Amino acid sequence: MLRLGIIGATGYVGAEIVRLLALRDDIEITTVVSNSFVGQPFSEVYPSFRGIYDEICDGLDLDKVADKADFFITALPHGVSTAVIPKLLDKGKRIIDHSGDFRFRDVRVYEKWYKVTHSSPDLISQAVYGLPELYRDRIKNARLVADPGCYPTCSILGIAPALDRKIVSYKNIVINAVSGVSGAGRRSELSYAFCETAENFKAYGVGNHRHTPEIEQELSLICGKEVIVSFTPHLAPMKRGMLATICLDLIDTDVTADDIRSVYLDYYKNEPFVRILPLGQLPQTKLVSGSNYIDISINVDTRVKKLVVVSALDNLGKGSASQAIQALNIMAGFDETKGLLTPGQYI
Amino acid sequence: MLRLGIIGATGYVGAEIVRLLALRDDIEITTVVSNSFVGQPFSEVYPSFRGIYDEICDGLDLDKVADKADFFITALPHGVSTAVIPKLLDKGKRIIDHSGDFRFRDVRVYEKWYKVTHSSPDLISQAVYGLPELYRDRIKNARLVADPGCYPTCSILGIAPALDRKIVSYKNIVINAVSGVSGAGRRSELSYAFCETAENFKAYGVGNHRHTPEIEQELSLICGKEVIVSFTPHLAPMKRGMLATICLDLIDTDVTADDIRSVYLDYYKNEPFVRILPLGQLPQTKLVSGSNYIDISINVDTRVKKLVVVSALDNLGKGSASQAIQALNIMAGFDETKGLLTPGQYI
Amino acid sequence: MLRLGIIGATGYVGAEIVRLLALRDDIEITTVVSNSFVGQPFSEVYPSFRGIYDEICDGLDLDKVADKADFFITALPHGVSTAVIPKLLDKGKRIIDHSGDFRFRDVRVYEKWYKVTHSSPDLISQAVYGLPELYRDRIKNARLVADPGCYPTCSILGIAPALDRKIVSYKNIVINAVSGVSGAGRRSELSYAFCETAENFKAYGVGNHRHTPEIEQELSLICGKEVIVSFTPHLAPMKRGMLATICLDLIDTDVTADDIRSVYLDYYKNEPFVRILPLGQLPQTKLVSGSNYIDISINVDTRVKKLVVVSALDNLGKGSASQAIQALNIMAGFDETKGLLTPGQYI
Amino acid sequence: MLRLGIIGATGYVGAEIVRLLALRDDIEITTVVSNSFVGQPFSEVYPSFRGIYDEICDGLDLDKVADKADFFITALPHGVSTAVIPKLLDKGKRIIDHSGDFRFRDVRVYEKWYKVTHSSPDLISQAVYGLPELYRDRIKNARLVADPGCYPTCSILGIAPALDRKIVSYKNIVINAVSGVSGAGRRSELSYAFCETAENFKAYGVGNHRHTPEIEQELSLICGKEVIVSFTPHLAPMKRGMLATICLDLIDTDVTADDIRSVYLDYYKNEPFVRILPLGQLPQTKLVSGSNYIDISINVDTRVKKLVVVSALDNLGKGSASQAIQALNIMAGFDETKGLLTPGQYI
Repeated sequence: MLRLGIIGATGYVGAEIVRLLALRDDIEITTVVSNSFVGQPFSEVYPSFRGIYDEICDGLDLDKVADKADFFITALPHGVSTAVIPKLLDKGKRIIDHSGDFRFRDVRVYEKWYKVTHSSPDLISQAVYGLPELYRDRIKNARLVADPGCYPTCSILGIAPALDRKIVSYKNIVINAVSGVSGAGRRSELSYAFCETAENFKAYGVGNHRHTPEIEQELSLICGKEVIVSFTPHLAPMKRGMLATICLDLIDTDVTADDIRSVYLDYYKNEPFVRILPLGQLPQTKLVSGSNYIDISINVDTRVKKLVVVSALDNLGKGSASQAIQALNIMAGFDETKGLLTPGQYI
Repeated sequence: MLRLGIIGATGYVGAEIVRLLALRDDIEITTVVSNSFVGQPFSEVYPSFRGIYDEICDGLDLDKVADKADFFITALPHGVSTAVIPKLLDKGKRIIDHSGDFRFRDVRVYEKWYKVTHSSPDLISQAVYGLPELYRDRIKNARLVADPGCYPTCSILGIAPALDRKIVSYKNIVINAVSGVSGAGRRSELSYAFCETAENFKAYGVGNHRHTPEIEQELSLICGKEVIVSFTPHLAPMKRGMLATICLDLIDTDVTADDIRSVYLDYYKNEPFVRILPLGQLPQTKLVSGSNYIDISINVDTRVKKLVVVSALDNLGKGSASQAIQALNIMAGFDETKGLLTPGQYI
Repeated sequence: MLRLGIIGATGYVGAEIVRLLALRDDIEITTVVSNSFVGQPFSEVYPSFRGIYDEICDGLDLDKVADKADFFITALPHGVSTAVIPKLLDKGKRIIDHSGDFRFRDVRVYEKWYKVTHSSPDLISQAVYGLPELYRDRIKNARLVADPGCYPTCSILGIAPALDRKIVSYKNIVINAVSGVSGAGRRSELSYAFCETAENFKAYGVGNHRHTPEIEQELSLICGKEVIVSFTPHLAPMKRGMLATICLDLIDTDVTADDIRSVYLDYYKNEPFVRILPLGQLPQTKLVSGSNYIDISINVDTRVKKLVVVSALDNLGKGSASQAIQALNIMAGFDETKGLLTPGQYI
Repeated sequence: MLRLGIIGATGYVGAEIVRLLALRDDIEITTVVSNSFVGQPFSEVYPSFRGIYDEICDGLDLDKVADKADFFITALPHGVSTAVIPKLLDKGKRIIDHSGDFRFRDVRVYEKWYKVTHSSPDLISQAVYGLPELYRDRIKNARLVADPGCYPTCSILGIAPALDRKIVSYKNIVINAVSGVSGAGRRSELSYAFCETAENFKAYGVGNHRHTPEIEQELSLICGKEVIVSFTPHLAPMKRGMLATICLDLIDTDVTADDIRSVYLDYYKNEPFVRILPLGQLPQTKLVSGSNYIDISINVDTRVKKLVVVSALDNLGKGSASQAIQALNIMAGFDETKGLLTPGQYI
């Protein structure tokens, strides 16, 4: 029985992890650590868990908490993770961190975009970027895995095959992406209030969203060139879901959608959670809602000589919580798909 | 391995049953029968199942289909079920029917409210009303189970203890209930179009909804008196969810909410899916969304001498699909809770 | 040109009043007073007003603000209104107050339900309950009008004719009502966050909502008996809209729905904003959204000998902001319907 | 009093036109023509109009209908308009057509993208593209105005100043746009059902949407070069609203956002409905919902040397119905802004 602790368990990502693991017979959630709800049953914070997961939330006292588990998932704000993780590593724990703190190979990129000084830059080199499709082998034995951001997961997996196989240019990549509101976390700010958000659509963070350099880092590693992307995130009036529409310049303009689709099918042929759609079909966020799947569609616009990839995932699924569990399965030597093959909640 | 056929599998109830069973290792869905999608993969009708359940939909040719399975769940319109079920019974199949056709003990009540002539009235006596909390023992060996309606499940379970233990009068029962839009099924009618339904709330079927006599039948059986209820259903702008607010006249006006809650706790003490909330807490549909739970809250309004019970379930969960699976588990001798303990999808 | 000041202008009720009055040629909004946004243009707080109403928000300095206007609408929390209104009255201003502070004839009822001590009980006798359908004549010359609550407006107008004409008993009145989320005001509390509210339906304040005694006061005045009601409010996942389903005991059980409808038509024959629906039609909140109309439907359930009235309005319309403007029109001697005949926003 | 007929009045665009004109004192809607609801009161089709606009729907008998009005707005499917409009023109009527039939200068472009043969190509030369910001003078005396598409209005107005003033290249224009569901019209198709649409986001028509050549035509006319754009529309779970995110290649990479904003302010300095937002602010669809405004935001992404314009309007407002009324005001010699200055419905 794997003993797992979740630090920052009462945010939406934490709650989704508990939802996905509560019934597992090979993993026991031995501690849920919260800042705001210490001493309260988890099922008071999220009453959907009443009778299912009623454990009391622990405070963040690492001396007490660390002994309770062997693996930890940390879902803390960036900057806070860096304070907690070194201590857990010192105690021999293996960690999947959900913040941006350990996703960057170059600490300067992190510090520039996150506008903080990294307090544990020495740990960066041992952190593995937790995208199983790219780093499965390294995740296996990692002590510290950085769970990728939702926009990066959706974008990188949509672009990787085309860039790797030199179907498209590494220049002039334009990504427009949309997130459901849960991507902002469990927050009581006015801008996420129902009356401010429902029946509304908006762009935000144009040209300066922190997921931009994360996308660029991984795309650059794939093609060996410095990739700079135009990235614009948007907020849609729905709770879950993420969709990226990616415009890429075709290198060989004679290539067909069918050719490219074959490349994608081949590239992801061993991936249980990447679904390349038949030509003519397009992703919809409801088709992956609550699941660990990512759906990818290939479209060639011959008039403008562009490949338009559309990819969709659940920002709380493959975009965060269930992807963390996929990494956990790999690290623990479990079947990678354990507990994650559930279909999306269509309705 | 239990072989299960689903007839009427491409409606929302059918799809939810497939979602809940697709990953079970003790049940195999051996045929999905559809009227509109014969010959198409189920995962084209609901692409969320792509790679998970890709079987081809069969047509309703009972000679071919019957051999494929030992158990059948029929999710057909009322009046259609009566044509199919006798043939399946003849072939020795065991059936859970989701229509209203076999829920009534008195065929005249059925015929009056459904405005059709019942074509198999002789089968009524062997049908068991599939509410495990009331009829678990009879479901076990039933050949034909009538899966209860969503409003009746939500109402009956909310009222049963108070009525059975004579806390409230059997007269002057007022039920106001609300359903999500999926309760209407997968329909392309204009009145269920997004632009007609979103940001809108309405009452419908005031005093004449077909679930009224179903509620009355079961309440009458509980208290041994002829119960007549005032029942008003409403439609809320959400996909899933059902909530009933039930006003009941207290017999003994000195009884406290705490007393009544104790009665409910006792009445349901062996029920894995009925959750009696702590006093002061009220149900919310999101807390049971996608699950088989029903949450029930006890409130005493001393000013008007009424017990106000508020109960909530998922109309596609405990209100139909997962309740059918609960019955199936019982019929098949499986652990009754198998595959059904998943918490609601809070977000 | 009527000079109007709005105190508490940056809440949702205030913003709706500005929306409805911004283009009037006979009313000038000469000051918008805010607590949180002093010194900021109103159109920064609500950018929908950019280029339409860009005035700077004033702080609540009554010495400065009072001179700017002759009429004031106060949309302040209860308890705060009582501190502001006496000073405005002293300066000869006429006021429509949106709080609960001056709605009650008996200060003890107010103090019991609102759990505060009223600081200006002497003013209560001169306050007029601002429901034009009941108090038009008194509103005309009133110095202080108490804008009714949304639930009371929806409930009282639905019950008044039947109670007044002795069609129904004054006992055993059961009101179940539903509000859109804007009824809670512009609040950044977690429970009104999009992810907590969307795809969710719940009851709240069972038996203890503050609008209960307001309904009871007016119904008691109509029938000359002490009316006590069972009132249960609910929250639906939509921004605007309110619907009440009201169960009333018929006195004469031979009366038909058509008879009762005739009574309602007669009772409201001079009312421009009350629409009695044809028999068989039911209200929907979208049909009155953004408007000052209330739609009322008459249903007789002969089985249980009850009249079921269903009424709908916009909680920010006839339920608050536009009803305040209706009162203002009356007080100022304008055509009562001026600026208020706009149809609901169906889509 | 201008006598106006609306042909195709019972679709969403028609209903929005009636909503905006019903209370005008200078325009009388003398006939509402419908295909599906002949003989029924308009207020039965849209009961929000009960008591406000109760006229009976006429059938499409042009001999009878034409005499009733001097101006007509036709909201018919493409291909149908071409059959009706010549006859109305023959009778001396002036027309605003909402279909795509008369938006194109080159009939071959129309026929290629719409896959029909144009039955009145001779009328194309006298049709004026009804975008007041570009063609105000020609609209004044036009007999036939083609009301622009929603995506084209949102895109063209967002791009025009930058392209006209040679700030950006006419090549490599990438437009990602999002529409509310009402953009699809009043349709009972399953894909627009609430349960299929709510909590869902998707792309559609990638590279082949019919609004693409309309955008290209107008941009080409502005810059005198043949413009080809990458255009991807999306569907968001909301009733109204449209937002376009437009990536444009800067020609002079030293130009600042402030410089460009000044150009936009100057270009639209006489436009009452175009609002150029302050730098750092981004449009939201709720801010223009129900209004005739378009909000435009200027963003420069120096890293990728692109201008990112974000523009938002209401697809039923500036994107169709209210823009048609703006054209009507111009044609009729009324104040262009009459009845159209209402702010968006924030809540």
